[in-house]
Amino acid sequence: MTILVCSSCRDETGSDAHPRAGERLAESARRAAVGQGITVRTVECLGNCKRRLSAALLRDGAWSYVFGDLNVSSGDDLVTGAQLFSTSTDGLIPWRGRPDSLKRGLVARIPPLALIKEDK
Amino acid sequence: MTILVCSSCRDETGSDAHPRAGERLAESARRAAVGQGITVRTVECLGNCKRRLSAALLRDGAWSYVFGDLNVSSGDDLVTGAQLFSTSTDGLIPWRGRPDSLKRGLVARIPPLALIKEDK
Repeated sequence: MTILVCSSCRDETGSDAHPRAGERLAESARRAAVGQGITVRTVECLGNCKRRLSAALLRDGAWSYVFGDLNVSSGDDLVTGAQLFSTSTDGLIPWRGRPDSLKRGLVARIPPLALIKEDK
Repeated sequence: MTILVCSSCRDETGSDAHPRAGERLAESARRAAVGQGITVRTVECLGNCKRRLSAALLRDGAWSYVFGDLNVSSGDDLVTGAQLFSTSTDGLIPWRGRPDSLKRGLVARIPPLALIKEDK
């Protein structure tokens, strides 16, 4: 289970100052993930620049999720979502129990390629 | 190379009538993809409901892309993007040569899990 945070995201001020808001979100996620068996990684850009702070939840063989409209303290919500995801048996993150930020902030979900190949 | 179209997307009228706009987009993509070695699949929901007609471009071992703000005739653009993607050597869709709809419409991109694991 991996939380992938976009480290280049700016906050609502649009400031280029470092650490960027995205880096602070990644740090928040790392703190929340300690001892949880969840990996936190950063990436330069998730391409979701229209909806500010972004992160993805990725799990082998499951759907991939991208969330936006996060803030620098959303690390706890991301870890809660990742834990929920890890309990899923159908490769989807259950809606029930999902933090509000991961309901409102859903940007996209992509099925695993293996699932698509089985289709039709 | 797979084009994955959200078949449940509605057009700007919000109509529930079938075929849904997303189904028409999928049909447009299928027509454009004939003989191109590109697979077109549909999925019930890509979760990008805030930006209307959506589709993803997926390639084994490469980044996954989600686009929104498409229309029922965007099949040609999706196939052009898929062809461009198939020529890529770094797992990313080149910006240059990308149809405008796939520049403006970028919703998110997700790196392959293998790439993330190599990180750090």
